[in-house]
Amino acid sequence: MSTPAAAPPVCVLGLGLIGGSVLRAATATGRRAWGYNRSAHAVEAAVADGFDASTDLAATLARAEDARALVVLAVPVPAVDSILAAIAEHAPNVALTDVVSVKGRIADAVAAHGLSARFVGGHPMAGTAESGWEAGSADLFRDAVWVVTVDDGTDPDVWQHVARLALDCGSVVVPAESREHDSAVARISHLPHILAEALALSGAGGGDLALGLAAGSFRDGTRVAATAPGLVDAMCEGNATALLEALDEAIDVLQAAREQLADGSTGDLTRSGHDARTRYEQRQRHPITGIVPGDDNWIELLRAAGRQGGVWK
Amino acid sequence: MSTPAAAPPVCVLGLGLIGGSVLRAATATGRRAWGYNRSAHAVEAAVADGFDASTDLAATLARAEDARALVVLAVPVPAVDSILAAIAEHAPNVALTDVVSVKGRIADAVAAHGLSARFVGGHPMAGTAESGWEAGSADLFRDAVWVVTVDDGTDPDVWQHVARLALDCGSVVVPAESREHDSAVARISHLPHILAEALALSGAGGGDLALGLAAGSFRDGTRVAATAPGLVDAMCEGNATALLEALDEAIDVLQAAREQLADGSTGDLTRSGHDARTRYEQRQRHPITGIVPGDDNWIELLRAAGRQGGVWK
Repeated sequence: MSTPAAAPPVCVLGLGLIGGSVLRAATATGRRAWGYNRSAHAVEAAVADGFDASTDLAATLARAEDARALVVLAVPVPAVDSILAAIAEHAPNVALTDVVSVKGRIADAVAAHGLSARFVGGHPMAGTAESGWEAGSADLFRDAVWVVTVDDGTDPDVWQHVARLALDCGSVVVPAESREHDSAVARISHLPHILAEALALSGAGGGDLALGLAAGSFRDGTRVAATAPGLVDAMCEGNATALLEALDEAIDVLQAAREQLADGSTGDLTRSGHDARTRYEQRQRHPITGIVPGDDNWIELLRAAGRQGGVWK
Repeated sequence: MSTPAAAPPVCVLGLGLIGGSVLRAATATGRRAWGYNRSAHAVEAAVADGFDASTDLAATLARAEDARALVVLAVPVPAVDSILAAIAEHAPNVALTDVVSVKGRIADAVAAHGLSARFVGGHPMAGTAESGWEAGSADLFRDAVWVVTVDDGTDPDVWQHVARLALDCGSVVVPAESREHDSAVARISHLPHILAEALALSGAGGGDLALGLAAGSFRDGTRVAATAPGLVDAMCEGNATALLEALDEAIDVLQAAREQLADGSTGDLTRSGHDARTRYEQRQRHPITGIVPGDDNWIELLRAAGRQGGVWK
């Protein structure tokens, strides 16, 4: 697809699993790339591994502003506000993206700091059970889906810089409006955790007899209940608005199934559920073609393409 | 453990996947074993495979009565009543068990035909996606859990005959009261299907965007929604009373989680759900010792042992 003339250097703020992997992957493409981390440990480890990293946020940002870098926000949610304040002070003109999961909340924070004009959100759907610089890898994003947001007023040049970084990291790019992204991940990533916890509780409520009879359906249905509770809380609480909606919808479905079972049949639920799973199994990615960022209606067109399962290549 | 003097011959009624596998497994232990099936196809296939099988129900049952056989009821639920009527007519004194999943309903049907005194229910927790005689195997029950019921008034000799058949088939035996069995399988086998259907619907409700972002948690949480709807309906509707209870409990758990999330935290749910999954992962079977069927209180003692994760060996 069309790309801007030159890929800008990349400045990564936060060198944990995701940020550290972005720094490695961007460097591996031959771009100039450097990073910042608050704690010296990750910076020392990154430097020891041959990367360009610093604990000096102001200097790191000044360098990004001079170089017209693409700045990648990769800090934990609680640190986002103070980092945005520093960007507004030291690098107000850079192109800005993030890799901090829930998108509506980050877009709001970016707007509160007056940085929306040059911001495009991102969410690489990749990770491991480990965390920290040491857990990262230049290949973490290979063949992953990387959502790049298209909100009202999105700058087409920044959008292409962000999409190109994601592609350079080996991902496929799915365009989505921020709130639609949050609603989608509530359905397919956060609700599964809530249902798994509830199922695990139901099984344990039946004591050792029930747990001893459990086989594949229970094992698979509760697998993610083994995730550390704090991680699940952070995901769910960070996307509370969208998750509440998905959860209410699921409770309604279960209530309706309950009434139908009391009347004698689960047929409506099982047929529609089977169709839904089949649709999931048969989903396909198709390349988005013929849309040029900046052309008339490009924002609406990209969102519509993403809704239909299109990917930007 | 103690066993009666001689293992009786085995007469299997219904030669589908489960019944056909029982006939094979019983024959493999060197016992006399024969079977009945309504349709000639399965009987011809069984005979061609070297087994003793017939389409004549009355003659099959008269032979069982003469030989004091253990009769294994392995027909689909809709056929249970007519088969029980034939047993009451032609073989009223045989020891009787079944392999038809939900136990309370079968026990009620057996009682309605006046056959409770020599009946002990069974549920081998084994199966494959296939059905019919051809899908069966003498090894289907190897290392599976086979629930053998201990209800009020259970005959200790029949109980031991049934338990021994299950052990001879390679299973471990879990003793449980019929209603407790039904409640347990509602929690660990039927509720997982209902929740998987609901999760699949939630994902599909987010369209191709959501389905395209789905990863491991959604894949595993919806796996059993791929099961043929008719099979899920038969399981769920056959155990409606217990499943309604488990489903109401799960809806209550989700409602409480919803309120807590609206108040800002999923911490209660995630901690208790994580504990429940850990308990499942760490469950262990221990052999039941020191209980002799027929001794004082043996029924209560066996039930209690089963509740605590004990298996009869």
